[in-house]
Amino acid sequence: MERERISVAVLGATGSVGQQFVTLLANHPWFRLTSLLASPRSAGKPYREAVRWLQPDDLPQEAGDLMVGTAGQPLSESLVFSALDAEVAGEIEADYARQGKLVVSNARNHRMVPHVPLLIPEVNPGHLELIEPGKGGIVTNPNCSTIGLALALKPLHDAFGVARVHVTTLQAVSGAGYPGVPSLDILDNVVPFISGEEEKMETEPRKILGQLSGGQVHPAEVLLSAQCTRVPVLDGHTECVSVLCHQEPGLAQAEEAISGFQPPEEVAGLPSAPKSPLLLLPQGGVPQPRLHRGSERGMRVTVGRLRACPVQHLRFVLVAHNTLRGAAGGALLCGELALARGKVPGVEPGWTPARI
Amino acid sequence: MERERISVAVLGATGSVGQQFVTLLANHPWFRLTSLLASPRSAGKPYREAVRWLQPDDLPQEAGDLMVGTAGQPLSESLVFSALDAEVAGEIEADYARQGKLVVSNARNHRMVPHVPLLIPEVNPGHLELIEPGKGGIVTNPNCSTIGLALALKPLHDAFGVARVHVTTLQAVSGAGYPGVPSLDILDNVVPFISGEEEKMETEPRKILGQLSGGQVHPAEVLLSAQCTRVPVLDGHTECVSVLCHQEPGLAQAEEAISGFQPPEEVAGLPSAPKSPLLLLPQGGVPQPRLHRGSERGMRVTVGRLRACPVQHLRFVLVAHNTLRGAAGGALLCGELALARGKVPGVEPGWTPARI
Amino acid sequence: MERERISVAVLGATGSVGQQFVTLLANHPWFRLTSLLASPRSAGKPYREAVRWLQPDDLPQEAGDLMVGTAGQPLSESLVFSALDAEVAGEIEADYARQGKLVVSNARNHRMVPHVPLLIPEVNPGHLELIEPGKGGIVTNPNCSTIGLALALKPLHDAFGVARVHVTTLQAVSGAGYPGVPSLDILDNVVPFISGEEEKMETEPRKILGQLSGGQVHPAEVLLSAQCTRVPVLDGHTECVSVLCHQEPGLAQAEEAISGFQPPEEVAGLPSAPKSPLLLLPQGGVPQPRLHRGSERGMRVTVGRLRACPVQHLRFVLVAHNTLRGAAGGALLCGELALARGKVPGVEPGWTPARI
Amino acid sequence: MERERISVAVLGATGSVGQQFVTLLANHPWFRLTSLLASPRSAGKPYREAVRWLQPDDLPQEAGDLMVGTAGQPLSESLVFSALDAEVAGEIEADYARQGKLVVSNARNHRMVPHVPLLIPEVNPGHLELIEPGKGGIVTNPNCSTIGLALALKPLHDAFGVARVHVTTLQAVSGAGYPGVPSLDILDNVVPFISGEEEKMETEPRKILGQLSGGQVHPAEVLLSAQCTRVPVLDGHTECVSVLCHQEPGLAQAEEAISGFQPPEEVAGLPSAPKSPLLLLPQGGVPQPRLHRGSERGMRVTVGRLRACPVQHLRFVLVAHNTLRGAAGGALLCGELALARGKVPGVEPGWTPARI
Repeated sequence: MERERISVAVLGATGSVGQQFVTLLANHPWFRLTSLLASPRSAGKPYREAVRWLQPDDLPQEAGDLMVGTAGQPLSESLVFSALDAEVAGEIEADYARQGKLVVSNARNHRMVPHVPLLIPEVNPGHLELIEPGKGGIVTNPNCSTIGLALALKPLHDAFGVARVHVTTLQAVSGAGYPGVPSLDILDNVVPFISGEEEKMETEPRKILGQLSGGQVHPAEVLLSAQCTRVPVLDGHTECVSVLCHQEPGLAQAEEAISGFQPPEEVAGLPSAPKSPLLLLPQGGVPQPRLHRGSERGMRVTVGRLRACPVQHLRFVLVAHNTLRGAAGGALLCGELALARGKVPGVEPGWTPARI
Repeated sequence: MERERISVAVLGATGSVGQQFVTLLANHPWFRLTSLLASPRSAGKPYREAVRWLQPDDLPQEAGDLMVGTAGQPLSESLVFSALDAEVAGEIEADYARQGKLVVSNARNHRMVPHVPLLIPEVNPGHLELIEPGKGGIVTNPNCSTIGLALALKPLHDAFGVARVHVTTLQAVSGAGYPGVPSLDILDNVVPFISGEEEKMETEPRKILGQLSGGQVHPAEVLLSAQCTRVPVLDGHTECVSVLCHQEPGLAQAEEAISGFQPPEEVAGLPSAPKSPLLLLPQGGVPQPRLHRGSERGMRVTVGRLRACPVQHLRFVLVAHNTLRGAAGGALLCGELALARGKVPGVEPGWTPARI
Repeated sequence: MERERISVAVLGATGSVGQQFVTLLANHPWFRLTSLLASPRSAGKPYREAVRWLQPDDLPQEAGDLMVGTAGQPLSESLVFSALDAEVAGEIEADYARQGKLVVSNARNHRMVPHVPLLIPEVNPGHLELIEPGKGGIVTNPNCSTIGLALALKPLHDAFGVARVHVTTLQAVSGAGYPGVPSLDILDNVVPFISGEEEKMETEPRKILGQLSGGQVHPAEVLLSAQCTRVPVLDGHTECVSVLCHQEPGLAQAEEAISGFQPPEEVAGLPSAPKSPLLLLPQGGVPQPRLHRGSERGMRVTVGRLRACPVQHLRFVLVAHNTLRGAAGGALLCGELALARGKVPGVEPGWTPARI
Repeated sequence: MERERISVAVLGATGSVGQQFVTLLANHPWFRLTSLLASPRSAGKPYREAVRWLQPDDLPQEAGDLMVGTAGQPLSESLVFSALDAEVAGEIEADYARQGKLVVSNARNHRMVPHVPLLIPEVNPGHLELIEPGKGGIVTNPNCSTIGLALALKPLHDAFGVARVHVTTLQAVSGAGYPGVPSLDILDNVVPFISGEEEKMETEPRKILGQLSGGQVHPAEVLLSAQCTRVPVLDGHTECVSVLCHQEPGLAQAEEAISGFQPPEEVAGLPSAPKSPLLLLPQGGVPQPRLHRGSERGMRVTVGRLRACPVQHLRFVLVAHNTLRGAAGGALLCGELALARGKVPGVEPGWTPARI
């Protein structure tokens, strides 16, 4: 007998990230997409008509037939994925949380609130304990460029204690959504500024690598300097990183730490989890966004050019898929972990992935 | 009466940088292009036929008519600009120097030899004193990504003493020459590796900012870490820089140092010198390679986003034209300074720019 | 004694085409820019603050200081260049014309009105006679992709009578203005549709090549089929053309017609006129937009690959700069011809270019 | 009991198309890749070391372990896929054919020989009868831009008789192989010339649509004019087509012909065959190479913008994946049809796909 899947809603369903939620939820083994909400402008039409579909895969039949609702309206689902813009996300997400829903959000609004988990399941699954079972709440997904960095820093932090980080990003245009970056700004060009991005990269990893105690997260003592640029690449953020550790790592030790990194078993078994979240490549002109962004359905972060830094200890380059691992895919993984840990309100206690 | 111009030769005349020498020398007030040399394969034909001309401007008539010679053959000119590949430049340039010519070279071969000037006229004109008048020798032009960095560091080094530098570059494809980077490698992509580039950026600025004494250059005590990437941009290297100084600069002081930077008067008057070699832009998403590479005929370095660094002292972004300031234009400026200082053999002592 | 220049106004001054008018008028020998008008949102501020300046050249000092007015407000200038969007251009331009101004417009609204000249000075200068001296009126500039085609067809039409034309365009993103084409739509992509473009290309050349009689233009009997695509190119439209003529031309005759094409003398002497409006290149992989769009300050159309067509008579490829020859530069040339022919109201009859 | 798969060899295995053969053969239900041959320079090394692997998928384990041989050496396989360059393909392929192998070739050398099938299985499967069972021979795959065109013309030709075709192509850089098109030639640019391409497009469709009789193919009486351009797109050729038919089709009839097109049943069941080889999209700015090249694993041709042509009868735009449908994938499909029709020498007569 097929087990019943959990009904979920998506907020901000017509935008780029919303569309990726719809795609990824189309054949999800645990979740069933039952509500799509957007701005009042889109509401009242079948999703098929309300959306300007931009994904390479066809619009899933079932989702296309759903009637679009207005973000903020009453919902029967207990689990809500939010791809709302930051301009409106703050209040609407908080309202649903107060109504006892578990909201997994891509927006920046609640990320730095000390009692809200800023979650990368492979890195800080324990932070999910900030959510009280049965009560709902908000779980946030980090910024798209933070996720790759925090994942790559995690094994180094565990082994050597990361103290200082310089990172320069070369970010894809899809990170700005649609219509986003005008072609006149980016063809044959680089834009060395992305509003708010450097601030996020300099604060979010501290919280993600931080310690939970007393009902809140205490940020790790890591100093970060981020310089963020936009380049003519469609998908996949590239980051050039230099790290100083409390305990100087030898190159072989660092390689071992990164290539040996394994997430906790409870995470490795989640449907959206990559087989391994970090891939360390041997020397050469890699990773490259076009070649590596799709690794493990876009959920794996690829690291390369790991070498000594003449000024700090280590240097490396990473590539992470910004709209899969860095947005909808990452959020989905958070939702899966929440379900597995019994944090989705109203799901009978006996529901466990093992039963499927 | 028009003063006679100095005859000059160009080595490696058919490649990208060679073509830019030809373009820039077409109407030069001091130099007259009289010899074009290349590989034996191109020799014996008129330049017009030997070259696959790729410049936006038309091939200058006079240069097109010159019969191409073989690099290494005897020359009557005392001043030789070299755009030879590093594979062959070492020996051929050294031979001409031994024959008493002054060779201004773009190749990397002799750059780090302690008694060979590695010259940016606005930064270290005094290093030209390594050349003895009347004897010839080799003057080298730094790597295309070093030049922008060294120029931007110069005023900070003079005012505060630069101690440590992190730089990540986003380099244009023209830096790899023609055919250079295959389109299959760079469309919708970033290549985070350029062979030999990081080593050059980590050593050349030390020499350029170094002190001359005892007939050689003693490198400055600056630690540099460079991560070099190739991006889908035609011309203009972008660099994200973080600097730690011996004496911590306030932001206003740093702004003043950079925007107030003026080269020595002897350099400011050279025909290829920009009115000011550094332009500091106010805050915003600039500089950008497409918008700023052409500033002052490609000879000015544009700096922007100057701000405090959470890990070191200062951060900024710079854009420099890699084939103009970073190659042929920069070398021409070196040749002009050499002429003005009486370092071109056989030029009568009374020849001074002031007489023109 | 310097002759007084004619004061002109620019409508739609903050958009892309408006900015190019401002650039081209900065040092114009006949015109002096005295009024800049835009939407009410921009009005009341100095142009420097109202505009998001996107041109490679610096914003001209004098224009930057002008206070922006509202398009439609009373004007003292007799000559008005319009870069208004088609949504508002129709009524505003007609109003100014009724007030006795001569309006030179880039918008499509009035182009196909039989008594309004659709003007390419080198092709159909006589159509300007539809404007009665002293009365004002509207002169229109053709669509950016029409101009290159009509110019290239002109000598063939004169010599052999053009009967049928197939044209496929590969158009630059700047043709869509700013922000225009989203980068997500055009990186690594082609968009084979531009709204309204094919209709314009299939009708405008007929009028431009048509005959003036009885106070209106009678279109030429030419059948055109246009397929318009957008490609990842910044500036410069490329067009692949096949032509059937009433009288079959030999290839040598066709070459002679195109390369020998000269505009009427009254046009050749206008300040914005290229030395020759058509350049025919020998065989090879040219013309290319990046190499040829800038020819003669962007005012010359470059033709190449002229060869026999297995289905019709002739085939060729052309490149034309879409925002210079195809917009502001072309309109300026129209304004110059209008002034030279005494069609600008209020300019004393004795004013002739010869007097300057 | 699992049926034994047929052993196949790949010639030119290290190039771009060779790599795609290796990828597509990795899990092929009928074929087993047992020999990889390349130039003497690559021979003698494991494929893993001989190849510069450029595919998004990982190099298949089994192929990576194969020792590379020299193209031309004796082979035990009866079926050989050739991705050799035209410079060497002619003689080597002919030699293998004389030795009784069936060679399926991507090279242009033998395409236009009247007794050599130029095969698109969905279009002219009957031409395979030029191959005598048990004797071997050469089967050729059309040019990458021909395949999309011929497939789209087929239903129109069957229904209305195609008489005249104008086509302009916008071709991807991968069509030129690796390193292929230099980035300096194609960034922010179009190259309106591809050597030999127009000639292929003007002759190959005539043969493909031709009639078999008397042991050779008699070309169809279709006149074609092709203008071929290269654009900054990685994969996927776009073609703008205009067609004149012997019998004028109404638009609805043409839509019906294209959207109703079905290949013969023997072809529809082949492992590499798309469910339907032609997809007709409703009006809009499609097809686009980035959105549609991957349709049905790159084996389906997407048609859009079908509309009346003011000069001929019909116009449309098509997108076809040039290295999948247009090269390795198309050739594989030819090999599958050859096997199904009993044209692979040495395969016991009873071998039929139905038995698997």
